[in-house]
Amino acid sequence: MSRGTLFGVGLGPGAPDLMSVRADRLVRSAAHVAYFRKAGRHGQARRIVEGMLAAGAQEHPMEYPVTTEIPLSDPRYNDMLAAFYADCTAHLRTLLDRGEDVIVLCEGDPFFYGSFMHLHSRLHGVVPVEVVPGITGMSGAWTATAQPITWGDDVLTVLMATLPEEMLREKIAATDALVVMKIGRNLPKLRRALQSAGRLQDAWLVEHAQMPEQTVQRLSDAGEVVPYFAIVLIHGRGRRP
Amino acid sequence: MSRGTLFGVGLGPGAPDLMSVRADRLVRSAAHVAYFRKAGRHGQARRIVEGMLAAGAQEHPMEYPVTTEIPLSDPRYNDMLAAFYADCTAHLRTLLDRGEDVIVLCEGDPFFYGSFMHLHSRLHGVVPVEVVPGITGMSGAWTATAQPITWGDDVLTVLMATLPEEMLREKIAATDALVVMKIGRNLPKLRRALQSAGRLQDAWLVEHAQMPEQTVQRLSDAGEVVPYFAIVLIHGRGRRP
Repeated sequence: MSRGTLFGVGLGPGAPDLMSVRADRLVRSAAHVAYFRKAGRHGQARRIVEGMLAAGAQEHPMEYPVTTEIPLSDPRYNDMLAAFYADCTAHLRTLLDRGEDVIVLCEGDPFFYGSFMHLHSRLHGVVPVEVVPGITGMSGAWTATAQPITWGDDVLTVLMATLPEEMLREKIAATDALVVMKIGRNLPKLRRALQSAGRLQDAWLVEHAQMPEQTVQRLSDAGEVVPYFAIVLIHGRGRRP
Repeated sequence: MSRGTLFGVGLGPGAPDLMSVRADRLVRSAAHVAYFRKAGRHGQARRIVEGMLAAGAQEHPMEYPVTTEIPLSDPRYNDMLAAFYADCTAHLRTLLDRGEDVIVLCEGDPFFYGSFMHLHSRLHGVVPVEVVPGITGMSGAWTATAQPITWGDDVLTVLMATLPEEMLREKIAATDALVVMKIGRNLPKLRRALQSAGRLQDAWLVEHAQMPEQTVQRLSDAGEVVPYFAIVLIHGRGRRP
């Protein structure tokens, strides 16, 4: 019996009709649907496909044992996550080895800062894997600002706000256009880095891009508490040679 | 009579089923379809929607007066393009002022290094404008390599190969993950910059991502002639704090 295929399916930034036609077809016809979520939550990826799953589709939620409760620097963090991904992989393999196809729901694009790669790295070369790219959360965010992020020869830099402050400052000072992800509790550090790079006044904050609760504001007007998945961006101005 | 809406519709990287469900609906129902193309060519954006347009849809090709025949540094280049975009805007305005909606077909994402922004900057605030984000060409390219482009706290830098060699070298040396666009005749310069940054062996070349003629190879194995719309990339390795 031949093995099933593991599909990593990009769902886009949040609006169901911003998933690709290919993703839409895969989601509606899937017999096995897997997705990551925080324990006790519905899960954002699952929420995007609400009302789309076929009758009888089996769901396989994969619940993170930790997310932000333990510092990244704690060795237990790595150990717990490695054991978690090994468990998820073993569970999906029982389905795949039976010849069942499994789709993994991925917010945004599966290969762009996604959790899917932890399954991909363990199953690539072991079972057939197909990845369906998606509209990234950052595309959703800059579209929400109604201004182009880059044109001409602009340099775009994508940073995680989890990086050290001095590294953030250096990269922000050296780029034309900027996207920063993983904001949440890193916001005060990011604000200081933007300020010392002289770019705070150019920065926009987008929360819940392409979802009903979407908000867009200048970062200088924003409060202190923002979601982890908020996006901060600075538009390029069209560098010319 | 109310004005029509200008839609900038992202088509994604090339495969028709990688456009969003929203873009698919707009393309199939549009009465007026505009797109840029090089004179004498069918046009890549138009090619993606082949067979999808409604019977009776009116097409409005907008043919670039120059692309790469005149150096960017020649003042005539700017003048000719400015007059061209003014003409395109005037033509679309006659339709929009009559109350007709117009969709502009955009490869990739309209706000990410696209020509749509030259219409957007002239019509934003004048007529209603709606932008539908799309899967970028770079997402199509890294998906084609079957490896994640970024994970963990990787820094991603997006560069145009039209930039000066020394600037390319500096940016390439300082980033984890890399995407380079606008390759074409800039390939020898880009190769030298990658070599002097010590990253040539990590670089991949993707041509015609997500199209039937897609190719993926190590840049070090590639020839001297590549299309302008080829993409060079280096995968991140998952930076940790």
